[in-house]
Amino acid sequence: MATGTHTIRVRYGESDQMGIAHHASYITWLEECRIELLRSLGASYRDLEASGVMMPVIELNVRYRRSLRFDDLATCETIAEAKGPSRVLFRTVVKHGEIVCAEAEVTVASVDRSGRPVRIPPEVLARLA
Amino acid sequence: MATGTHTIRVRYGESDQMGIAHHASYITWLEECRIELLRSLGASYRDLEASGVMMPVIELNVRYRRSLRFDDLATCETIAEAKGPSRVLFRTVVKHGEIVCAEAEVTVASVDRSGRPVRIPPEVLARLA
Amino acid sequence: MATGTHTIRVRYGESDQMGIAHHASYITWLEECRIELLRSLGASYRDLEASGVMMPVIELNVRYRRSLRFDDLATCETIAEAKGPSRVLFRTVVKHGEIVCAEAEVTVASVDRSGRPVRIPPEVLARLA
Amino acid sequence: MATGTHTIRVRYGESDQMGIAHHASYITWLEECRIELLRSLGASYRDLEASGVMMPVIELNVRYRRSLRFDDLATCETIAEAKGPSRVLFRTVVKHGEIVCAEAEVTVASVDRSGRPVRIPPEVLARLA
Repeated sequence: MATGTHTIRVRYGESDQMGIAHHASYITWLEECRIELLRSLGASYRDLEASGVMMPVIELNVRYRRSLRFDDLATCETIAEAKGPSRVLFRTVVKHGEIVCAEAEVTVASVDRSGRPVRIPPEVLARLA
Repeated sequence: MATGTHTIRVRYGESDQMGIAHHASYITWLEECRIELLRSLGASYRDLEASGVMMPVIELNVRYRRSLRFDDLATCETIAEAKGPSRVLFRTVVKHGEIVCAEAEVTVASVDRSGRPVRIPPEVLARLA
Repeated sequence: MATGTHTIRVRYGESDQMGIAHHASYITWLEECRIELLRSLGASYRDLEASGVMMPVIELNVRYRRSLRFDDLATCETIAEAKGPSRVLFRTVVKHGEIVCAEAEVTVASVDRSGRPVRIPPEVLARLA
Repeated sequence: MATGTHTIRVRYGESDQMGIAHHASYITWLEECRIELLRSLGASYRDLEASGVMMPVIELNVRYRRSLRFDDLATCETIAEAKGPSRVLFRTVVKHGEIVCAEAEVTVASVDRSGRPVRIPPEVLARLA
């Protein structure tokens, strides 16, 4: 398992008329967290795609606990774990200070350009171990 | 339980560099489906908010089965069901023709302007039954 | 010159904490208007891209006159006009009833997959005339 | 006139099927740049809104010169200048290294909660001078 922390500043356009960060915004933050976790481990998701391996999301679960607002700084703690040869599970807790705002699990699959499952490249797998 | 069908055309900006509809786009479609289901039942979510009742998302689960692409027309079948006095569960199947592209469950809570749980208004509850 | 009208329903997630449609949302609506105008003329932007011709935006000008709100239906009137062999200018007026909410000009360039300018395909050009 | 520099990392979901950052993404970056410029000057846009002064965008002009791609770091140089008692013009150049990718002018108006023009608060005006 590999872990990392990433900070997100809520954008104005991510707020909605309830005055809180819209729930769909979290999905793009979770993606940013996954990419930054890989980067912190020395793996570039951009290079991974350039090499022909994509990691589309196949499952998404989010529990929203407390609201975030425009301009809030959220601390996102992510744990990544390989699940078999071609899947990775990312678990992220989105916090505002000590308050848990959301908990999420995102599963991505390792596929080639035509969408067929492929093994996670060994150098990425090693970094997730 | 109340059911409805809504059609979504994938926007260009909703595609990503994999050439498919980005997974976060589905979250805004699901929201549009919930609002259109309420409308088809004779309830306006806008009026609901104007009356002081908001329905923020508290839980989101999506399983992505097949890709959608820019310009695809997706047919979204949604079932809504009250879960206790202040929650509604919406289940949506996103299809492209006969192919199931995604299955989702979204739970919303009925809250007042300060975020406290309130009972779903009886006229809305009656429409969901 | 070719003209068309397209209707947009403001999505909830397109609202912001001012309680109005966020200004960036209009940009995706304008894109939807361009694509629907081409469709109404018998041209598919998807097919155009599949044939190797892309039309990225190279200039964007928007004047915001009045707000739109969540759930509003906006009527968008678009005029398209070829500007030389590889550019098209789209002018759109976004209205809410009789009220002009925004006026926009968007210029797109006709380019090949490597980004080099190419002539607008004659069958598209004919439809814009 | 006040100036500032802000860095943006292109998000994956901001790419489109052309493989480049979608043109609407720049609009949210420009907003982030304005807010960060104000912050760097000691003014909080969040506090400004809390005090009853909003700054909606009333005009937007963008010229797209070169593409940005997912994961690119863009350097955004912004200059702000008051234009009369209730308007501010922000000019931003978005660069990738030394390459100018986009040039933008965004005009915001200072309004109260009901949308009526109000004077830019003197403490903000002083910081823009």
